[in-house]
Amino acid sequence: MTAKRRIKAKATKIKPKRAKNLSPGTVAYTGKKSTTVTELDIIDYSKEHYHRYRTNNIEEAFNYEDSTNITWINVNGLSNADDIIKLGTHFELHPLIQEDIVSTYQRPKIDEYDDYLFIVFKMLHYDNDRLNYEHISMIMGKDYVLTFQEAEGDVFSDLRERLEHDKGRIRGVGADYLMFAILDAVVDNYFTVIEYLSNKVELLEDKLFDKKEDPDIAEEIQQLKKEILKIRKAVVPLREVVNRLEKIDYTIIEERTNKYIRDLYDHIIQVNESVEIYREMIWSLMDMYMTTISNKMNEVMKVLTIMASIFIPLTFLAGIYGMNFDHMPELHLRYGYYYIWGLMILVFLGLLWYFKRKKWI
Amino acid sequence: MTAKRRIKAKATKIKPKRAKNLSPGTVAYTGKKSTTVTELDIIDYSKEHYHRYRTNNIEEAFNYEDSTNITWINVNGLSNADDIIKLGTHFELHPLIQEDIVSTYQRPKIDEYDDYLFIVFKMLHYDNDRLNYEHISMIMGKDYVLTFQEAEGDVFSDLRERLEHDKGRIRGVGADYLMFAILDAVVDNYFTVIEYLSNKVELLEDKLFDKKEDPDIAEEIQQLKKEILKIRKAVVPLREVVNRLEKIDYTIIEERTNKYIRDLYDHIIQVNESVEIYREMIWSLMDMYMTTISNKMNEVMKVLTIMASIFIPLTFLAGIYGMNFDHMPELHLRYGYYYIWGLMILVFLGLLWYFKRKKWI
Amino acid sequence: MTAKRRIKAKATKIKPKRAKNLSPGTVAYTGKKSTTVTELDIIDYSKEHYHRYRTNNIEEAFNYEDSTNITWINVNGLSNADDIIKLGTHFELHPLIQEDIVSTYQRPKIDEYDDYLFIVFKMLHYDNDRLNYEHISMIMGKDYVLTFQEAEGDVFSDLRERLEHDKGRIRGVGADYLMFAILDAVVDNYFTVIEYLSNKVELLEDKLFDKKEDPDIAEEIQQLKKEILKIRKAVVPLREVVNRLEKIDYTIIEERTNKYIRDLYDHIIQVNESVEIYREMIWSLMDMYMTTISNKMNEVMKVLTIMASIFIPLTFLAGIYGMNFDHMPELHLRYGYYYIWGLMILVFLGLLWYFKRKKWI
Amino acid sequence: MTAKRRIKAKATKIKPKRAKNLSPGTVAYTGKKSTTVTELDIIDYSKEHYHRYRTNNIEEAFNYEDSTNITWINVNGLSNADDIIKLGTHFELHPLIQEDIVSTYQRPKIDEYDDYLFIVFKMLHYDNDRLNYEHISMIMGKDYVLTFQEAEGDVFSDLRERLEHDKGRIRGVGADYLMFAILDAVVDNYFTVIEYLSNKVELLEDKLFDKKEDPDIAEEIQQLKKEILKIRKAVVPLREVVNRLEKIDYTIIEERTNKYIRDLYDHIIQVNESVEIYREMIWSLMDMYMTTISNKMNEVMKVLTIMASIFIPLTFLAGIYGMNFDHMPELHLRYGYYYIWGLMILVFLGLLWYFKRKKWI
Amino acid sequence: MTAKRRIKAKATKIKPKRAKNLSPGTVAYTGKKSTTVTELDIIDYSKEHYHRYRTNNIEEAFNYEDSTNITWINVNGLSNADDIIKLGTHFELHPLIQEDIVSTYQRPKIDEYDDYLFIVFKMLHYDNDRLNYEHISMIMGKDYVLTFQEAEGDVFSDLRERLEHDKGRIRGVGADYLMFAILDAVVDNYFTVIEYLSNKVELLEDKLFDKKEDPDIAEEIQQLKKEILKIRKAVVPLREVVNRLEKIDYTIIEERTNKYIRDLYDHIIQVNESVEIYREMIWSLMDMYMTTISNKMNEVMKVLTIMASIFIPLTFLAGIYGMNFDHMPELHLRYGYYYIWGLMILVFLGLLWYFKRKKWI
Repeated sequence: MTAKRRIKAKATKIKPKRAKNLSPGTVAYTGKKSTTVTELDIIDYSKEHYHRYRTNNIEEAFNYEDSTNITWINVNGLSNADDIIKLGTHFELHPLIQEDIVSTYQRPKIDEYDDYLFIVFKMLHYDNDRLNYEHISMIMGKDYVLTFQEAEGDVFSDLRERLEHDKGRIRGVGADYLMFAILDAVVDNYFTVIEYLSNKVELLEDKLFDKKEDPDIAEEIQQLKKEILKIRKAVVPLREVVNRLEKIDYTIIEERTNKYIRDLYDHIIQVNESVEIYREMIWSLMDMYMTTISNKMNEVMKVLTIMASIFIPLTFLAGIYGMNFDHMPELHLRYGYYYIWGLMILVFLGLLWYFKRKKWI
Repeated sequence: MTAKRRIKAKATKIKPKRAKNLSPGTVAYTGKKSTTVTELDIIDYSKEHYHRYRTNNIEEAFNYEDSTNITWINVNGLSNADDIIKLGTHFELHPLIQEDIVSTYQRPKIDEYDDYLFIVFKMLHYDNDRLNYEHISMIMGKDYVLTFQEAEGDVFSDLRERLEHDKGRIRGVGADYLMFAILDAVVDNYFTVIEYLSNKVELLEDKLFDKKEDPDIAEEIQQLKKEILKIRKAVVPLREVVNRLEKIDYTIIEERTNKYIRDLYDHIIQVNESVEIYREMIWSLMDMYMTTISNKMNEVMKVLTIMASIFIPLTFLAGIYGMNFDHMPELHLRYGYYYIWGLMILVFLGLLWYFKRKKWI
Repeated sequence: MTAKRRIKAKATKIKPKRAKNLSPGTVAYTGKKSTTVTELDIIDYSKEHYHRYRTNNIEEAFNYEDSTNITWINVNGLSNADDIIKLGTHFELHPLIQEDIVSTYQRPKIDEYDDYLFIVFKMLHYDNDRLNYEHISMIMGKDYVLTFQEAEGDVFSDLRERLEHDKGRIRGVGADYLMFAILDAVVDNYFTVIEYLSNKVELLEDKLFDKKEDPDIAEEIQQLKKEILKIRKAVVPLREVVNRLEKIDYTIIEERTNKYIRDLYDHIIQVNESVEIYREMIWSLMDMYMTTISNKMNEVMKVLTIMASIFIPLTFLAGIYGMNFDHMPELHLRYGYYYIWGLMILVFLGLLWYFKRKKWI
Repeated sequence: MTAKRRIKAKATKIKPKRAKNLSPGTVAYTGKKSTTVTELDIIDYSKEHYHRYRTNNIEEAFNYEDSTNITWINVNGLSNADDIIKLGTHFELHPLIQEDIVSTYQRPKIDEYDDYLFIVFKMLHYDNDRLNYEHISMIMGKDYVLTFQEAEGDVFSDLRERLEHDKGRIRGVGADYLMFAILDAVVDNYFTVIEYLSNKVELLEDKLFDKKEDPDIAEEIQQLKKEILKIRKAVVPLREVVNRLEKIDYTIIEERTNKYIRDLYDHIIQVNESVEIYREMIWSLMDMYMTTISNKMNEVMKVLTIMASIFIPLTFLAGIYGMNFDHMPELHLRYGYYYIWGLMILVFLGLLWYFKRKKWI
Repeated sequence: MTAKRRIKAKATKIKPKRAKNLSPGTVAYTGKKSTTVTELDIIDYSKEHYHRYRTNNIEEAFNYEDSTNITWINVNGLSNADDIIKLGTHFELHPLIQEDIVSTYQRPKIDEYDDYLFIVFKMLHYDNDRLNYEHISMIMGKDYVLTFQEAEGDVFSDLRERLEHDKGRIRGVGADYLMFAILDAVVDNYFTVIEYLSNKVELLEDKLFDKKEDPDIAEEIQQLKKEILKIRKAVVPLREVVNRLEKIDYTIIEERTNKYIRDLYDHIIQVNESVEIYREMIWSLMDMYMTTISNKMNEVMKVLTIMASIFIPLTFLAGIYGMNFDHMPELHLRYGYYYIWGLMILVFLGLLWYFKRKKWI
């Protein structure tokens, strides 16, 4: 019951949703997380300086953008179209970008504009054994990075800590490195998601090998299939995105960042390979399950065959001497009853030996 | 019965139909919708001006074409070859184009001519749980767009409303944007079709998980396979069409429209991915179904095995004491009958415990 | 029995046959249709002029070739090597071409020579429910077209009629258009073959859905697999041939014919797609069949289980009161017999209700 | 038993064997055919001249090489490394070539050196129903061809005859044509191998359709799978080899030979296609076999169900009147015994009719 | 039990592990082999000179590097980050390289830097029937090669011996040849691993053909699937690495080494092909297993059917004459009892004959 509802809830995510029949460029949120408030989480930093600021007032973000520091404006909540449009207008974002930011169905992609790069990707996380899918858009300009999330809660906490405590090289370099670091955090997170999935696969395998009765295994396998398909839907296009990012000739991206992007590309390929391997393994689980069912049926059949093959002939023997013919000499033998018991025991042992030789028992 | 007829009706659509052995370039309608009347639905518009006009008189269309406004002539009904030829002659359409307009079997394609672009695509819609396939051709010239449909009824009502009420940017831009908007409406509609299909898949999954008896499931899965193959047949070539449209260097298509076409390409790729995912899922439904059948058989076998394994030995015991030997001491015991009942109950409980331990009950 | 022989007869066609270990370039017919006579069917035409002539004398063909008209020489029968060599020598055909003309195993291909194009393709037709494969070679020179068939009977009758009665544009244009028209007739015919195949697939599907006993279904599916593989073997390479024909820069092919060749390419792609779709569907028929068998077994098992589960316990009850113990108080009850009948009916109804609840009956 | 050993013997061939951990370029024979003697079969020819000579003395070969005629030195036996090195040193073969000549595991390949071409390929033949794999290397220089085989016995007897009796064009042309003729003989032989395989497939199909009991069918199918994989392993890389041979710009290969190589390429593609088709068909045999097993089980189940369903209820009826109740009025009826026989016959016929209606009998 | 634990232990290796959320370029060992000591095995050689030296002191390595000889520094143990960083700093390795050296999850890759090449690959070996995976990194500079392994024990012993005893050409050539020789040893080792795997596949096949009861076969097949997937994960990317190595235009790699790299590429392709073949065969084992189960069930069913079909009718006959009707004439026949025995034997023989004819016994 609950399993079914869970599946439905997830299945809906695979369906491509789109605000229907709106004029292209219309900004209409298509997701389900209705945090009506748009919250901004602004981090303004340079090598010497670090400042974090949270607000619900869009205009406050504009001050930061003009500073010479690098500014990372993270927007939580996409349901308030006005706010998105206000931000979009200030940063001179093309209407189609504004549409993509709120269209949670949008697949990962990269678009180059004159003054900024626009990247769409998906954040995955298992929440209460459910695979969640969050739509994130990122705009990288000369000295700022904008990120848009559906709701609060993300995989960037480590990154923020590194920024705050000036760990690694991040504070000393430009917005392009910040962009890389954000993508890197997302891809790192994919490894976590796959590890979680791999545990689920192994658990299911153990269940199958244990040969316990569990009619829900087919359902669970189907569920895993859906999850791996969803992960793939996020990972495969991101690979193209990073590949293109590597090849882009873009003044904002400094030479030294390229090495890191190449490294990121290695990682996303690796995620990809793991996804493909788990896909194959999940698909082959179904075959495994099929053999398990057949093995069980074999066992059931054997019990039936042994019981029936032993007792049906014996019952026949008993039936013979239950007949009421006037002339049945055996009935009047002194030890007839014991002879027949002996015969029955012989038949019984003979059949046991037969089944033993066949290795059925 | 009805299911079978339904399948046949649909299957015929997969078959490539062609007016046989006609001279290439012959205009002969190959579809089934015989609206003998050709109806024109003409929309003539500019930023300031909007006029919609319906007529059965082909010649009236020619007036509109000469105006400086953008003219969209939508032709409903392809069965009257003369009308198509008349229009074709006026707009100087190549004979092969005229043939393609009425050849409903024609797969989606794009052809570049000197003065116009010719695009063929398919409109899909579920009608009474049947997937329908409508052949649409479009010709886009400098300031006009011609569309040809098999019958009235389409997915362009929102687009017409936007035109009428001057929503979005459509009234202010050229025929190339109108072409884009028409394709966009068609692709948007594909999302709806896939959503419908996804609901059917989920319903079938639920049926499978419910383990209810339903011998028609195989038929329904086969049906879904055919539908997804049909959708794919419409979507895959359209992807190539849009891809080529994006790369065409054509003076009629303005620079700013290109961004929208790229966006359209994103959407059609997305439809494609969804189609592939549903394809995989529908194919794996068959495996699911197979395991369901086997599970059911297992259950049936268990009932049989338990009933037979318990009562056959008991019947044997009863048979023993139904024998008519002269000397059967147990028969004359005071409590023999009760002893045997005790033994039977012991055997019964022993077997119950055995099956319980095997988790069969 | 007949089915098996039929299959073997067909299977031999898939096998690549080749006149073994002959020197390359040796002209040796490898087919089975031994019309010892080589017959020529010559059509000589221009816009004003049309003449058709049949002869068994090879030399007569040479007169026609020198005329300024377009000449189509159709050769029926490939078993007389001398005739082929005579023709080949006159038209200066390379020895390898002569070999290919009579090597019926040769896959579709196109070879460019200085003065002519050489195209090999297959004509398919269902004859008495058997898929036949005919090897056709075509040579297109400046003002002549040679075609070589294994036997009389082809798909060009409509084309000949169009030539005779000057329908369409064919009489007014060159040999390149004739070449196109021949290929077009062959591809059109593929549509017919696929339609026939599609009917066979649907018939088989109906059989499967009807759940009738039919042990030959596996055989028929295997047969369909072979046929689709044969069709594919003819269609896939022809697609490459037409694609290359479209790209060839060849003075004999006029600019205006190119549009038609592109159209032909569209058609052959369409045939291809249909072949792939039917291939997938035929393959999935096997799965369907498997579920049908399992469903039937389920049904058989249920009947057994119900019968056995109801009557084995009842027999046990009867067996109890068939025992011969001296002291069995129930036997002496006034209404004991009726009580036991009552108990039996109760057990019977209880089990019926149980199976009803399980939806087995 | 024997089948298993056969399989193992063959399976070992699929395993990539390599003389382990030797310095690259070490000449060490890895095959199993230990003809310790290296035998040379030298054919020296020109248009006018033909001389064949067999020897075990490597040095004698060197005389022939210096003549102006074309020399084909065929080396039988690879186990004597010294001989190979001696030959290799004389013909200035790179150490890696010498290693490849004796490494029977080496996959088909082509290497271009300054003065000669080095081609590795496989000769296949069925020997006593076992597919054999022979490693052949060929070196083609300006006026000589060297071939190295593991043992005597090959597919070149026709070629040698053509050389001896000056059939076709072979004696008049260069070493490049000889190289082509050797490859052509090998590829022609592949057709024979595939024909043999196709016969095995058909035999197996007939066995399956005959529905006879044969528990070894799975083993035979597995065996066929291995054979087709082995054939594929020889054919697929050879296709690349011939493709590259066609494109090589090499002075030793004359213009006119190119046409023949292109023809050879056509043939190897054809072999390839046949291999793929048989692969698909062999794979689908397993499905066929599965349905055959299930059909048989269905039949077994039906017999059981019919027997049990008919006689269990009848036995119950008999059991009823075997009870010993004091008051059982039917027992005392005059025709009670006949009535009960009548009832039993009715039940029997009713069940027969039921099974007939279900088409089980 | 143990099997399950074994699988888990291995499965964890497929999972992409990564030190989570560290700043990119952080050096943190992710493997499991915690040899806290980093051991260096230094081989310094030229044509005339050979010296091998083992130490735990990183600094000692620096002396060797400055010599004019070729120096191979093999580092065993990656868990001490400080040591790796010390080495990395001395050899001026990019932080990302240092990260990759200790990140055992890193897939095979090649990175070109100005002064050195960086190659990552995997060493595979079966240890106690478990497939082990060791991460190896290699840096090749002008006159030195660095290799990093997780623990002692490798496949380079033959190579070291060749170095020590000056076998082959290795001592006379540069660091590029050493790099090749190391890769060659690794690829050679893949052949050994595949041979081991092939033996496991054959053993499993024999088990399947023997038709013995073995419920663990599914588990073993699943295990083989995982192993082949792991091998593939090591082999496929290495193929790309060697391919790129072949094409690199790098002054350190001398012309003559290129031939050897091409040869290496041939070998890695061969490994690849074998992996694909075994993959197909392992996958088809599952089908084999399925048919084996079904065949066994068939056999069980037959025994049941034969026993039940023979003895149920006989029991019915006995039941008839166990009835207590007052008037049963047969009971009073002189030889009634013998007649009934005769009838029973007839029925018995008739059914035996029936089953014999069906070839069930």
